[in-house]
Amino acid sequence: MSPSSSPWIRRVDLIPPSLKDNTADADRLVAALRKKLAAEWVDIDVDLLAQLPAILRRCDYRVRCSVFRYRNGWVLTGVDCADHPRPAAGLAVDLGTTRVVLLLIDCAGGRTLGEQAFDNPQIAVGPDVLTRLHHADSPGGLRELTDLMIGGLNRSIGRLCRSAGIEPADICAVSVAGNTAMTHLFLGLEPRWLIREPYIPVVNRPGVLKAADLGIEVSPFARVLIFPNIGSYFGGDLIAGILFSKLHQRNEPALLVDVGTNAEVVLGYKDWLIGCAGAAGPALEGGMTQMGMTAGPGVVDRVSIDPATRRFDIHTIDEKTPRGICGSGVIDLAAQLFLAGMIDIRGKLVSAACGDRLALIEDIRHLVVVPAEQSATGRDLTISQAELDSLVRSKAAMYTILETLTMTVGLDLSEIGTFYVAGTFGCFINPRSAIAIGMLPDLPLERYVPLGNSSLQGAALALRSAAAIDEIDRIRDRITYLELNVNPDFMNRFSAAKFLPHTDTGRFPSVQSQLKDLPHA
Amino acid sequence: MSPSSSPWIRRVDLIPPSLKDNTADADRLVAALRKKLAAEWVDIDVDLLAQLPAILRRCDYRVRCSVFRYRNGWVLTGVDCADHPRPAAGLAVDLGTTRVVLLLIDCAGGRTLGEQAFDNPQIAVGPDVLTRLHHADSPGGLRELTDLMIGGLNRSIGRLCRSAGIEPADICAVSVAGNTAMTHLFLGLEPRWLIREPYIPVVNRPGVLKAADLGIEVSPFARVLIFPNIGSYFGGDLIAGILFSKLHQRNEPALLVDVGTNAEVVLGYKDWLIGCAGAAGPALEGGMTQMGMTAGPGVVDRVSIDPATRRFDIHTIDEKTPRGICGSGVIDLAAQLFLAGMIDIRGKLVSAACGDRLALIEDIRHLVVVPAEQSATGRDLTISQAELDSLVRSKAAMYTILETLTMTVGLDLSEIGTFYVAGTFGCFINPRSAIAIGMLPDLPLERYVPLGNSSLQGAALALRSAAAIDEIDRIRDRITYLELNVNPDFMNRFSAAKFLPHTDTGRFPSVQSQLKDLPHA
Repeated sequence: MSPSSSPWIRRVDLIPPSLKDNTADADRLVAALRKKLAAEWVDIDVDLLAQLPAILRRCDYRVRCSVFRYRNGWVLTGVDCADHPRPAAGLAVDLGTTRVVLLLIDCAGGRTLGEQAFDNPQIAVGPDVLTRLHHADSPGGLRELTDLMIGGLNRSIGRLCRSAGIEPADICAVSVAGNTAMTHLFLGLEPRWLIREPYIPVVNRPGVLKAADLGIEVSPFARVLIFPNIGSYFGGDLIAGILFSKLHQRNEPALLVDVGTNAEVVLGYKDWLIGCAGAAGPALEGGMTQMGMTAGPGVVDRVSIDPATRRFDIHTIDEKTPRGICGSGVIDLAAQLFLAGMIDIRGKLVSAACGDRLALIEDIRHLVVVPAEQSATGRDLTISQAELDSLVRSKAAMYTILETLTMTVGLDLSEIGTFYVAGTFGCFINPRSAIAIGMLPDLPLERYVPLGNSSLQGAALALRSAAAIDEIDRIRDRITYLELNVNPDFMNRFSAAKFLPHTDTGRFPSVQSQLKDLPHA
Repeated sequence: MSPSSSPWIRRVDLIPPSLKDNTADADRLVAALRKKLAAEWVDIDVDLLAQLPAILRRCDYRVRCSVFRYRNGWVLTGVDCADHPRPAAGLAVDLGTTRVVLLLIDCAGGRTLGEQAFDNPQIAVGPDVLTRLHHADSPGGLRELTDLMIGGLNRSIGRLCRSAGIEPADICAVSVAGNTAMTHLFLGLEPRWLIREPYIPVVNRPGVLKAADLGIEVSPFARVLIFPNIGSYFGGDLIAGILFSKLHQRNEPALLVDVGTNAEVVLGYKDWLIGCAGAAGPALEGGMTQMGMTAGPGVVDRVSIDPATRRFDIHTIDEKTPRGICGSGVIDLAAQLFLAGMIDIRGKLVSAACGDRLALIEDIRHLVVVPAEQSATGRDLTISQAELDSLVRSKAAMYTILETLTMTVGLDLSEIGTFYVAGTFGCFINPRSAIAIGMLPDLPLERYVPLGNSSLQGAALALRSAAAIDEIDRIRDRITYLELNVNPDFMNRFSAAKFLPHTDTGRFPSVQSQLKDLPHA
């Protein structure tokens, strides 16, 4: 992206005032900006107005303006001398339930200045969303959750800016994508009615807000774009994903799959978009399984098991001593356990095959993935039968959602040419593993396109392109939301999908052929 | 004005949410409001968003919304149950240098709920504008001036609301009209460049701001409309005056005259508007003359002097014991002194005619208007020769401005059918007196139309009519500002006008005929 295409920075050289032209400072600047932006109007906060005379005179009327889109006009979010040494920065935020990720970019040109992530501090209240939402109902609970999030964000912004050599006050634009619940808690909006029939958000389109009104410690004039929701169970993170994948601009239907606590799926192309979301269960969310965590050094992200020897080959991020496993690692592990005959088609641990990797902890059967002497924690890293059961429900939910959605529009899964797979947890899901357990349909691997953190990247795109911002609401308004709990066949299909890879093994020929070739087959 | 035409109140009956229609609370309300307002967009502050779910459910989805125009959209400034017992109120403020006047209205229907006035607390820093503007340059000076004004306003709002039986939080809309300097100090904007060549305001069009951002203690969601300025010496008070007088809609040219520290004059009609302002001097501003004050009980507002006996007949407001004199009283006094031969055509006190009313105070000649034994202060109420000199300069400035402005557009003063005279100080200027001293041209008295406090009434009109709000910027943009200090003949005309009524006595035939008939003629 060339600096000239920067949507939020405008260099303005004003003709200084004179007796012949005694236009007011603000009006002079606004007139020049309106021309540059072809804008009907440009707003200036009163506190920035107050600083304007000194800035303009100090800078000899040659200034760099930060601007942001607001409704059908613009708002001035910063003014510095044209030769100001530090960049005007933008901050994209993926507001995850488990992990919050920040991307700092230079608004002039869109270059990445740094990235940071931190565990969602609301985990202290409850690791899962529902616990937090119930906590928000208690006196002071909502304020506490909002303060936890904003406090964590501000600390992370501080660290990120220090490492990038800029000041938090240099950040003039922020964009935030999160699911509906996280967005509510972020804005201090009571989520009480999100989780009670008929499941009503406070707002679907929060739009553009003042950072200062939200307590975000960046420039006091910065604006925050909040990605809109479709409803209680379909959030702005997915809208950001669509924006980033460009699903809405394609000529042929494709699927966007976001695997998390919710299985969120959008099917469509330039002519239509249909989405649905269903509780996939907590199996894939970091912090949910006993050893589950988000991506980071020492986290298991790939597993392979030799089907003959049942020897484990564990790969960790940065090849550090293992200390946990992330979502993609869990899917890999389950697939490998299945192909090695160590779990059966119901996902149950097979004693004979697991051998001394089996352990009984608090009366629940566990499989030892990494023994204590090889782990960074000094304890066995294990996965329990309960967690495997949960994973089976999650993968069944995902597959059933995919099946239901494509059937609804009269398509077969095999007709979908492209599956964008968003990696919510920073680990890329291996489609081969996801197919092996029947989470994703058995299609040629090249149809699966990893997207990375599409929520974060979509949020960043909104800061990098004015056209992208204009698309957000249009994407939102185009999506038809499919309500699953009114679909009569959904539960039947879900039950059929609760086997590895599926009751109807004919749907997964590649898995069948692998199984056939295995020593224990 | 009928309640149905209320521009800022909308009754909205929403269909409560259901599984069939799970639109978010805010989106549901906004959709209904957009329809009612034919609006492209309606903004809601995040703090109001946070209150929305509880309000909607408590009110059974039947609500009274306060809204306000913002750019080409609307902003929601309040939501209450449809049967809320107290009115949604609007507050109009005339931000005078000497006196601040508040008018409280019911936004539904426009009915006046109360009026209050208080002395501008910035007088503590300096009675005249220039002293205050210089004080604003000192460390902390601007903040002090702004805090004085906002503090005084908040106390006055409290008193006004108590007397009207409402809460300050019931006020959802505020409109403020003041001159450019007062508007700057009100908004906390440095006036440094207003008074230095080339005389540059910080902003001419502050637009609509949040009351909370300005520290005004009304509803935290209330918006404040600030009347725009033309330039450093032509302020929003006059734009409000034009709006109220409807000068800009007339079929024939008319003049709007606002007499204060500045002589502000606008000439025009539906096809064009031309304005100018010149320093008229402090003579007419309350607090400027030793006994000068703004209108109030005991303030001299009319004076007549029997030319035969030179007996004074003093009228005070509410007929209380005299304690001072207001602007219109000073003009009356000067006219009567002149007609009674007690001042000459240069405005100098005539010893022989003044007799024992003459007093020498600190070597300056004074005329005793009310002797100590009849005054409420226990001291003589006097007017000094210096104050009379100042008045002569003021009236000369006003007349010269009127003459220059009409000549500029090729008209003669006698061709102007209507003179709107704004009574800045709450006292109505008697045109007969203003003509006698040559401040206003010698035209049939019926051409002079008193407007009262047109700044306050214009500000109130903006709250009573959406159409009026739309006109404000159009009026501002239509005004051509005539720069007097570049007019070569201005000083010559000014010198000729520094006599009572004028060097060219033929211009004031009615005054001449009065003088002829007098005993001392």
